[in-house]
Amino acid sequence: MIYADNAATTKMSKTAIEAMLPYMEEFYGNPSSLYEFGQKAKEALESARARVAACLGAEPREITFTSGGSEADNQAIITMAHAGAKKGKKHIISTAFEHHAVLHTLEKLKKEGFEVTLLDVHSNGLITAQQVADAIREDTALVTIMFANNEIGTIQPIAEIGAVCREKKVPFHTDAVQAAGHLHIDVKAMNIDMLSLSAHKFHGPKGVGVLYAKKGILLESLINGGGQERGKRAGTENIPGIMGLAAALEEACGNIDHHAETLTPLRDKLIAGLKKIPYSELNGDASQRLPSNVNFCFEGIEGESLLLLLDDKGICASSGSACTSGSLDPSHVLLSIGRPHEVAHGSLRLSLGDDMTEETIDEIIAAVTDVVTYLRGISPFWRDLVTGKRQHVFAE
Amino acid sequence: MIYADNAATTKMSKTAIEAMLPYMEEFYGNPSSLYEFGQKAKEALESARARVAACLGAEPREITFTSGGSEADNQAIITMAHAGAKKGKKHIISTAFEHHAVLHTLEKLKKEGFEVTLLDVHSNGLITAQQVADAIREDTALVTIMFANNEIGTIQPIAEIGAVCREKKVPFHTDAVQAAGHLHIDVKAMNIDMLSLSAHKFHGPKGVGVLYAKKGILLESLINGGGQERGKRAGTENIPGIMGLAAALEEACGNIDHHAETLTPLRDKLIAGLKKIPYSELNGDASQRLPSNVNFCFEGIEGESLLLLLDDKGICASSGSACTSGSLDPSHVLLSIGRPHEVAHGSLRLSLGDDMTEETIDEIIAAVTDVVTYLRGISPFWRDLVTGKRQHVFAE
Repeated sequence: MIYADNAATTKMSKTAIEAMLPYMEEFYGNPSSLYEFGQKAKEALESARARVAACLGAEPREITFTSGGSEADNQAIITMAHAGAKKGKKHIISTAFEHHAVLHTLEKLKKEGFEVTLLDVHSNGLITAQQVADAIREDTALVTIMFANNEIGTIQPIAEIGAVCREKKVPFHTDAVQAAGHLHIDVKAMNIDMLSLSAHKFHGPKGVGVLYAKKGILLESLINGGGQERGKRAGTENIPGIMGLAAALEEACGNIDHHAETLTPLRDKLIAGLKKIPYSELNGDASQRLPSNVNFCFEGIEGESLLLLLDDKGICASSGSACTSGSLDPSHVLLSIGRPHEVAHGSLRLSLGDDMTEETIDEIIAAVTDVVTYLRGISPFWRDLVTGKRQHVFAE
Repeated sequence: MIYADNAATTKMSKTAIEAMLPYMEEFYGNPSSLYEFGQKAKEALESARARVAACLGAEPREITFTSGGSEADNQAIITMAHAGAKKGKKHIISTAFEHHAVLHTLEKLKKEGFEVTLLDVHSNGLITAQQVADAIREDTALVTIMFANNEIGTIQPIAEIGAVCREKKVPFHTDAVQAAGHLHIDVKAMNIDMLSLSAHKFHGPKGVGVLYAKKGILLESLINGGGQERGKRAGTENIPGIMGLAAALEEACGNIDHHAETLTPLRDKLIAGLKKIPYSELNGDASQRLPSNVNFCFEGIEGESLLLLLDDKGICASSGSACTSGSLDPSHVLLSIGRPHEVAHGSLRLSLGDDMTEETIDEIIAAVTDVVTYLRGISPFWRDLVTGKRQHVFAE
């Protein structure tokens, strides 16, 4: 099996599993307990917090553990929206191609009377800091823009956006679920006020994430109850998960340069290989993208069939994001960069892992080429393109 | 070490760990992915859902996985409150000694204009179905009453309360975090509409729980984003945690009668032993309580010192619940059953595990007796009681 869906989830690293096991098997105390056995769990928790903070250039008290990236996104946005509303600020800036954890939270806030500006995304999958500057108003409560897109992997100019937000004194949140452990992040240098991440995207466990919130920000609880996480996230702390997250993040952050050096040439080789398929195009900027991400549209192809036939050939890949794979709608991300509906339906995301080699890439190119050719051969839609009944969207 | 704090958290069972490991090490696919490797995770998820449903007498589609008991409590109560409000019903009935995950959610709802009736708890730690019947009004949106109390272990007449609620057509939620895996639960027979549980209370993993919601109830999402859990709980599913939860719940539910037969005599032996300490009293009904729970108040004792000295003797125990152990306030549970402040401060919860024997109980009795005697010997407060400057609350 070639697992080329690392943007959906990743295989846990041995380091992460080994960091969890002692807290599953032996040191199972509740960190809120007074006795030494509980305090041992508390010490582990606080050491994990410090280690995560160090990976992000943050302070330990700025780190809150959550059940994952979605919870962190929800909590960040709701916190800043309601804090803004108290000062009469009910305007939020985001982009059209955020993850649904952001977009759906913004939809909810619109029902509470917030106004949301979704910045247009350029056809290369990027927005500019100038767009953010132009959109900021007196009543802007929050700018929330993802670090790297989960479908097309484009990396936004986060430090520039951070600088604009800091200058205009508007809080800045970034969904860094795809970026954390893959790209260098320094929340202070980049002027990031809030950041979300999820452990299972960098070889850590599922079910645990982090919300970084700059000191001075008073988080609003989504989950009320006990006084855990300074009263901002109730529920007995998932110590094994948190230990796994911290270990995986440290490992991934120590490996970022190697990861980029290894994967960038493989990514570019894969892009070059798939470009040879007629009427295909890369989605998103060719260089300003995650080293692991390749995303293509193929004319005359239905994404689901493509995935199923690739699966038959032992290749795990996705069309759009895993979170919406049950949906029949075309990807909102591809629509946001101007892909027409009929092309957006024929997309393929391949997200590479550090275990891949040139041979793996050759195998993927051959398999995708075969499957696209086969599917076009049986597609009435493709026949219409060939016979000229329909116009091509892409050049040959 | 004698771990007598199983109400705070439990040691994971081997069964639960072994159920998790394959999904940590090998089958790490995202259940939302189309390919077979992802669908394997999806099958595991749905099989876990069916197994959990079977343990509760529910249907699989009535089971939603959450990050724990607190999240489940929050989501259940907010769902029914808002559903009620749409029909003009803004009254909620609960009790004064619920877990803070319930009480703090009710506080939040009060700020939204809900009226909350907290039923008085009798001195034995029980409420009656008649109290519920008397409190139900035309505009009651929800009754939420815990199955078994987390501090004093008293078991409420849930089936009777359920019958009253069904008759009056008021939705009934129960926080069963302390009961699940310890007591027989049948949501249909008991007329329970919603139920919360948490895996780490029955030898499962931390960071995962369940919200049962009777079919027809449309859950309100606390965490918005992807379409996981039928769109009612966004975020990549914590498959290892869910597999651990299902395995632990099945194991615990299969062991309920044995658990009760083993622990009830040990619990009663411990109660009898601690009763011999002068000026001490059991909190909560002596028989209508969890087989694992013993909770005492000792006059003239400060709970924190008691715990620390017991820790020195290798005994892990708690005063109040772990979730609030950082708090200097006396337990709201003990105040709710009428214990005066000065006595509520001197409480001790011992929650037994299946690994305990008569010898363990003897050791606990000896240690607590020693520590209480020692602490009273150095307590000015106790001296005042002895010299008659203060009145005793309990009989000798």
